[in-house]
Amino acid sequence: MAGETPQGDNMTGATTHRVVIVGAGFAGLAAARTLGNTGIDVTVIDRRNHNLFQPLLYQVATAALSPADISEPIRRTLGRFRNIKVMLAEVTGIDPSAKTVQLDHGASVPYDQLVIATGSEYNYFGHEDWRAWAPGLKTIHEARLIRQRLLLAFEKAELSQDSEEKKALLTSVIIGGGPTGVEMAGAIAELGRFMITRDFRKLEPDHMRVILIEAGPKILSAFPDNLVQYALRELEKTGVEVLTNLPVEAMTKDEVVAGSRRFRAGCIIWGAGVKASPAGRWLGIEGKAGGRIPVEPDLSVTGFPDIFAIGDTALGLAEDGKPLPALAQVAKQQGEYLGRALKEKLLDGKPVGPFHFQNRGNTAVIGRNAAIFDFGKWTLKGWFAWLLWAIVHVYLLVNFEKRLLVSIQWIWRYLTRQRGARLIDENAAAFVPSSTQRTET
Amino acid sequence: MAGETPQGDNMTGATTHRVVIVGAGFAGLAAARTLGNTGIDVTVIDRRNHNLFQPLLYQVATAALSPADISEPIRRTLGRFRNIKVMLAEVTGIDPSAKTVQLDHGASVPYDQLVIATGSEYNYFGHEDWRAWAPGLKTIHEARLIRQRLLLAFEKAELSQDSEEKKALLTSVIIGGGPTGVEMAGAIAELGRFMITRDFRKLEPDHMRVILIEAGPKILSAFPDNLVQYALRELEKTGVEVLTNLPVEAMTKDEVVAGSRRFRAGCIIWGAGVKASPAGRWLGIEGKAGGRIPVEPDLSVTGFPDIFAIGDTALGLAEDGKPLPALAQVAKQQGEYLGRALKEKLLDGKPVGPFHFQNRGNTAVIGRNAAIFDFGKWTLKGWFAWLLWAIVHVYLLVNFEKRLLVSIQWIWRYLTRQRGARLIDENAAAFVPSSTQRTET
Repeated sequence: MAGETPQGDNMTGATTHRVVIVGAGFAGLAAARTLGNTGIDVTVIDRRNHNLFQPLLYQVATAALSPADISEPIRRTLGRFRNIKVMLAEVTGIDPSAKTVQLDHGASVPYDQLVIATGSEYNYFGHEDWRAWAPGLKTIHEARLIRQRLLLAFEKAELSQDSEEKKALLTSVIIGGGPTGVEMAGAIAELGRFMITRDFRKLEPDHMRVILIEAGPKILSAFPDNLVQYALRELEKTGVEVLTNLPVEAMTKDEVVAGSRRFRAGCIIWGAGVKASPAGRWLGIEGKAGGRIPVEPDLSVTGFPDIFAIGDTALGLAEDGKPLPALAQVAKQQGEYLGRALKEKLLDGKPVGPFHFQNRGNTAVIGRNAAIFDFGKWTLKGWFAWLLWAIVHVYLLVNFEKRLLVSIQWIWRYLTRQRGARLIDENAAAFVPSSTQRTET
Repeated sequence: MAGETPQGDNMTGATTHRVVIVGAGFAGLAAARTLGNTGIDVTVIDRRNHNLFQPLLYQVATAALSPADISEPIRRTLGRFRNIKVMLAEVTGIDPSAKTVQLDHGASVPYDQLVIATGSEYNYFGHEDWRAWAPGLKTIHEARLIRQRLLLAFEKAELSQDSEEKKALLTSVIIGGGPTGVEMAGAIAELGRFMITRDFRKLEPDHMRVILIEAGPKILSAFPDNLVQYALRELEKTGVEVLTNLPVEAMTKDEVVAGSRRFRAGCIIWGAGVKASPAGRWLGIEGKAGGRIPVEPDLSVTGFPDIFAIGDTALGLAEDGKPLPALAQVAKQQGEYLGRALKEKLLDGKPVGPFHFQNRGNTAVIGRNAAIFDFGKWTLKGWFAWLLWAIVHVYLLVNFEKRLLVSIQWIWRYLTRQRGARLIDENAAAFVPSSTQRTET
């Protein structure tokens, strides 16, 4: 019986190496998989039971996909590797001298090598109170909260007799002009126009506004200018107003103040920059850019040869000395590299070369038939980029079932413009966004 | 532009009849659809934005389907009928003399004919405090809550060092031996066994218990004895313990006391009888069996010729004088009948004959390859009944997209035994079951 197989039956070395991985996002999961079915005793700790495919989370927030389409239980992903143990728990600290990880329910887990892959969270730049009014897009909970507010604002607008209130409810403000902000703005504009035309009786398409606010001089600042210009044109076509050089100064439940302008809104969304998870504090070290933990070329934390940091929480450097961007592909490559490196070092005693990031291309989708790709040497935009974006993202999903389900929903949506997941959850009042969301204990 | 069509443009009669339907479940939606694209001005009011296909809700609770697979925005279903208006609001009262319906946000809606289709809720027989520990299965919120508790109990059991606690966490108690209780018990047993064998390291299949408790002398009391015997055998094969003549006496967060026996449990589920929604109180009339509103043969509420009650909330009588069961097929047929009757009466001035219920067969599914059908004159059980059950339920889904999505997930599950929606929601602590859940105002 599978359940009766004792731990570490398939150990090959004389000593059992214990690798503990904290966080099962792109980075942690890639590291764990690479260490799968080896003689190394691997423990993966996450405070959630599922891995989330964040690049498609904006589609959950805009009612196009269901949460389960883009998430997978960590146990299911790692279940086939008999040397990997999964724990649903929150890490509260690290003791580098005792070589243990502390968990919230009091237990501690010993390690020989520790991998920190705890990701990042949205940065409200000191305005933590804004989090309640403008959720970011990092968890299923937040995506569902945004979906809820968006749909509820339209329902309230339909019932409203006051035309000013109606317009305010039909206004969505997205703060931050990075890929997530652009994707959300495009998707909200499409969803809103469709719903007004098809399903509502007392709303006019002209009453709807989608406003994308960026503090800096341009949106999609990581992309070359020709792609940014294209994105701006496409956003305008979809009906999105893009406002740059407009830092947000104040916010209430239904109003955003930026550059002395006031925007009443039915739904406010935050996408204005991320900061690393507070894992650096566990080690008593100060993070650098955005709280990220500085790492050596082998991804070990500077000063802690047995502790590694990968993904958004790590501050790795590219060959040119610039920090690597906080992207899924960096996280995945670092996880795979580290898994391989640990295997070679621990099992074969081989020395390990430094990590090299291979840029696979940076992408953002603006809306129906419109996406951009930046491959460094060349770029791609338009319908073909959009198709490539869709194919790549379906391919990156975790298994055949999810690929099939997402493909069908996308094809259905492409043909009918219908979005299948327009649900307002019943217990809306109980929805409280919080930076420290976790499972019941 | 669609959004600019004024209300009632397509009216044919000289006078506009205003029909207000409260509740968009099986009954209300069937009535509304039948009145679609006529000269009657129809308003549908519901406190939720979606219609839920409740017969498959237990599959959401056991991680087999996503909420969006079995729910559809009411606006989307009714969007193509230009004479139907949808309002997301909670009804707080009815004024039969002024002929208006009061809404929670203060507005009132006038009607000429009123249809009450507000359904039913679980009956805790005076123990409202049990609702928090043993959620029923009526809303998406409750299904997600049950899924959450079930999965979390297994996660906690994996971490527990105490073997008594481990066993308690792996015990599920289902109260009520009707179809919902049986379906839940079978599905939990299958899910649990699969997860323990495949994904957990420190749990034994023998530690898992699924206990189905029924206060009466037999489970599935609406079914003939040969089917009940079959169901009992199948439940036993799946590992479900069925205990009859055992009324629940007390309950805490993690313990059920019934017939002087104590059952510690990781998850408690309620399915022990329903009562009608409190719509009877709005009319100042006492409901009869389970709070249901007595109706005449034309489904008008006794004493209120312009108010009709259909579905679970109505107490209709069969030809033999017995009350009609609270089933989806009764609700649907009553809704269709009433829609037709109102159309003929209001538009053509025709008199309307009484409602006749046509029994299409009563069914319950016990597990993989096992279901029962009771068609009155003949019965069906086993693999073929299970296949028929699956085909019928896919067919009853609202559109082609949902049919395809559910079929794919079922085929996938049949082949792999994997369940795609094993998600523990992030904000578990905020999940509070409540009988008066509603959307944010």
